[in-house]
Amino acid sequence: MHKFDEAIALTMTSENVFTGRVGGAYGNMVGPFGGLTAATLLNAVMQHPQCLGEPISLTVNFAGPLAYDEFTIEAEPVRTNNSTQHWVILQKQAGKVVTSATAFFALRKDTWAEQELIAPTVESAQDLTPLASAKQLNWLNNYDMRFIQGGLDYDRGEPLENSLSRLWIRDHPQREIDFPALAAIGDVFFPRTFIRHQTFMPAGTVSITLQFHTDKTELAEVRDEFLLGEARASRVSKNYFDQTARFWSTQGSLLLSSHQMVYFKM
Amino acid sequence: MHKFDEAIALTMTSENVFTGRVGGAYGNMVGPFGGLTAATLLNAVMQHPQCLGEPISLTVNFAGPLAYDEFTIEAEPVRTNNSTQHWVILQKQAGKVVTSATAFFALRKDTWAEQELIAPTVESAQDLTPLASAKQLNWLNNYDMRFIQGGLDYDRGEPLENSLSRLWIRDHPQREIDFPALAAIGDVFFPRTFIRHQTFMPAGTVSITLQFHTDKTELAEVRDEFLLGEARASRVSKNYFDQTARFWSTQGSLLLSSHQMVYFKM
Repeated sequence: MHKFDEAIALTMTSENVFTGRVGGAYGNMVGPFGGLTAATLLNAVMQHPQCLGEPISLTVNFAGPLAYDEFTIEAEPVRTNNSTQHWVILQKQAGKVVTSATAFFALRKDTWAEQELIAPTVESAQDLTPLASAKQLNWLNNYDMRFIQGGLDYDRGEPLENSLSRLWIRDHPQREIDFPALAAIGDVFFPRTFIRHQTFMPAGTVSITLQFHTDKTELAEVRDEFLLGEARASRVSKNYFDQTARFWSTQGSLLLSSHQMVYFKM
Repeated sequence: MHKFDEAIALTMTSENVFTGRVGGAYGNMVGPFGGLTAATLLNAVMQHPQCLGEPISLTVNFAGPLAYDEFTIEAEPVRTNNSTQHWVILQKQAGKVVTSATAFFALRKDTWAEQELIAPTVESAQDLTPLASAKQLNWLNNYDMRFIQGGLDYDRGEPLENSLSRLWIRDHPQREIDFPALAAIGDVFFPRTFIRHQTFMPAGTVSITLQFHTDKTELAEVRDEFLLGEARASRVSKNYFDQTARFWSTQGSLLLSSHQMVYFKM
């Protein structure tokens, strides 16, 4: 069993209620990697017996620190139409809300289609060095991340001109991608202020919205290949900034957009 | 009293519960303009006696059609920390959820700041013609919209090359902008497939996330001036597409990002 599947595993204990446990395998600075939390909440909906269709959007709000302990998830289908379903999801520890979320699922059919946002032309993953693992950042060990530009280099000692990062990424060890794994990857980019200033500072995502541009059939064709990711901030101001990330398959299909607001102090 | 204030007015009837009524002033094709609904939910949080700070992000999911009738809004502060607050919001009609939402509010302090996303250089609003009002689209009468590019022209009869629109926009009659008005403006762009194909088709937003890059002080300085808006889709596929919109003040400050997923059929 892949560490990812173990990390997002849930048990349904009553109507709309699941239990799980935060393990250390995806540990981050404070609590687990946020992408794992997003994947876990998405997994709750996908494991729910009433789940209809595939994820189109997921918003996850990080309301309080997650302890390495048990949690419950209440996933409620608040509205089900013919081909669409809306979910409200609350993750709790010790009776307190630690994460709130909403998800939208739908059955998809063929329509007119077009991708306007073309993947940038970059070096191939094979020509790049994987990011070394980092102490106290266990989650990094579960990804093969190869920066094309905008990595973190403590030795550089001076800011970059902007917050743009590009990288190739896949699960490590390799794993055939599915919606939870794609959701997790939506949060892999470091806070943009780290990149801009090439240094750590207090920072953490407060809300992330994932937009799934792909469906199950196309995602199955991606298998365990690298995704190309790109992230950038638009505006940093008074403790908060946004960052938008995009992820394309090796073949160039836009699979996921990720839009987050991040707290920071500097 | 401005029509907008009348349209988003609420009465608190018990703990966390508000009532209001969908009027016709912001009517759209089916039910009211989605931006008005987003503004109304944001207003519930801002009217709540426990509200802390200013909006940073708001996600609104359009779960079912809103009737021109009374509604209730349940706005619950699910987690309050020292300087941050998370909300879960449900709007109901006849006991059914019509809209679900989450909001994140915070107290902001001065920090390092930077705006990477610069406003495009365009013609000034004074040199452009306001969009004519349209039958059965009352909400359009409440905005002064001046398209720079990517408007809807039925007489054109052929698609545009891409889905990019740019416009100047302000409330009509003019009104000093605040967070609810800014939230509403986040949803003013027509579905991108209308623009791309220069024709109407069945379409509707299913989920919109608003990111507030500005604070109360800066927003007060915008007064009732035009905002510059830009919107574009990334990928259209199997009944759904995304569209991201950005709004700058006349002075060039990025005030709002809006990221939505839209259903369509074609």
